Amino acid sequence: MSDALHTLEATVLAEIPLARAMQLRLRDYSGDCLTIAAPLAPNINDKGCAFGGSLVSLLTLAGWGLIVLRLRELDRKCDVYVQDSSVRYFAPVWDDFTAQARLAPGEFWETFASALAARGRARLSVDGRVALADGADACTLQARFVAIAKS
Amino acid sequence: MSDALHTLEATVLAEIPLARAMQLRLRDYSGDCLTIAAPLAPNINDKGCAFGGSLVSLLTLAGWGLIVLRLRELDRKCDVYVQDSSVRYFAPVWDDFTAQARLAPGEFWETFASALAARGRARLSVDGRVALADGADACTLQARFVAIAKS
Repeated sequence: MSDALHTLEATVLAEIPLARAMQLRLRDYSGDCLTIAAPLAPNINDKGCAFGGSLVSLLTLAGWGLIVLRLRELDRKCDVYVQDSSVRYFAPVWDDFTAQARLAPGEFWETFASALAARGRARLSVDGRVALADGADACTLQARFVAIAKS
Repeated sequence: MSDALHTLEATVLAEIPLARAMQLRLRDYSGDCLTIAAPLAPNINDKGCAFGGSLVSLLTLAGWGLIVLRLRELDRKCDVYVQDSSVRYFAPVWDDFTAQARLAPGEFWETFASALAARGRARLSVDGRVALADGADACTLQARFVAIAKS
C-alpha cells in the first residue's frame, strides 16, 4: 500500500467513528480509481446481507477519498464535501465487499484543478460501484462533491 | 414510546451493528411519520460535523422503519429492501440530529397494501429529511423500497 493510501486510511479510521465500526480498509489506489474494502460481519442488516447504509457509506467514502488523494498529490489543502448522490441497489450482498470509485464520464482532473485554482472551490462527479463475486453490479452510486480550499 | 416502536428499536439495534454504532433511537411514530434520532459524537466526520454516511443511513433506516411498522400493523410478514435513493446534502450538521420519514406525495398505504395482497410484493416511495435547529433542510432523501411477502 502506498504511503498516501496508508496515511488516508489512518486518518479516516481515527476521525470517522463509523468508518472504524465498518472496519473499512483502503485497498488500492491507481490515481484514477480508489478501492475500499469492508467485511460483511460488522455491516450486516436484519436479513443477514449488507446493510444499505454501509454500502452507500463505503461508496461515498470511496468517492470522497479519490478526490482527497488527488488533492494531496496536487498539494492543495481543501475540505471535500458530498453534495448529492443517487444510489441504486440491484442485488443483496452476502459476502465481504469492496467499493470502487472513479471519475464520472466527462469529468477531468485538469478542469477540476483549474477551477479550484481560479475560484477556491470546484465540483466533481464520481461514479462508484460495489460488485458481486460474478462481476455484476450489486450497488451503484453517482455522487457530486465540492472541494473548498482552506483559507 | 409505543410497544411497536420499542420492539423495532430493539430489533434494529440487535441485528444491525452499524445502527448500534450510530447509537440511534427510534423517537416517535405517528402512523404517517417515523422519527429516528442519533447523537453527533459517534457520527462525526473528519471535519467534526455529521458524516454523510451516517445521515443517509439514518434517513434510509427511517424510511425502511416507516414501512416495517405499517406492515406490522397490517399483520403482513415481509422483508423490506431499499431499491434506490437520491440524497441531497444542503448544510453541515453540527449537533445531534433526527431523521424523519413519511410517504412521498402521491403514495398511499391502501394502494401499497392492495398490491402486496395481490402480487406478494409492492413498491413504495418515501421522503426523508434531517433538519437544522432553525428548521431548514440539512439533508433530504427520496427513496424507493420494495416489500416482499415471506413465503
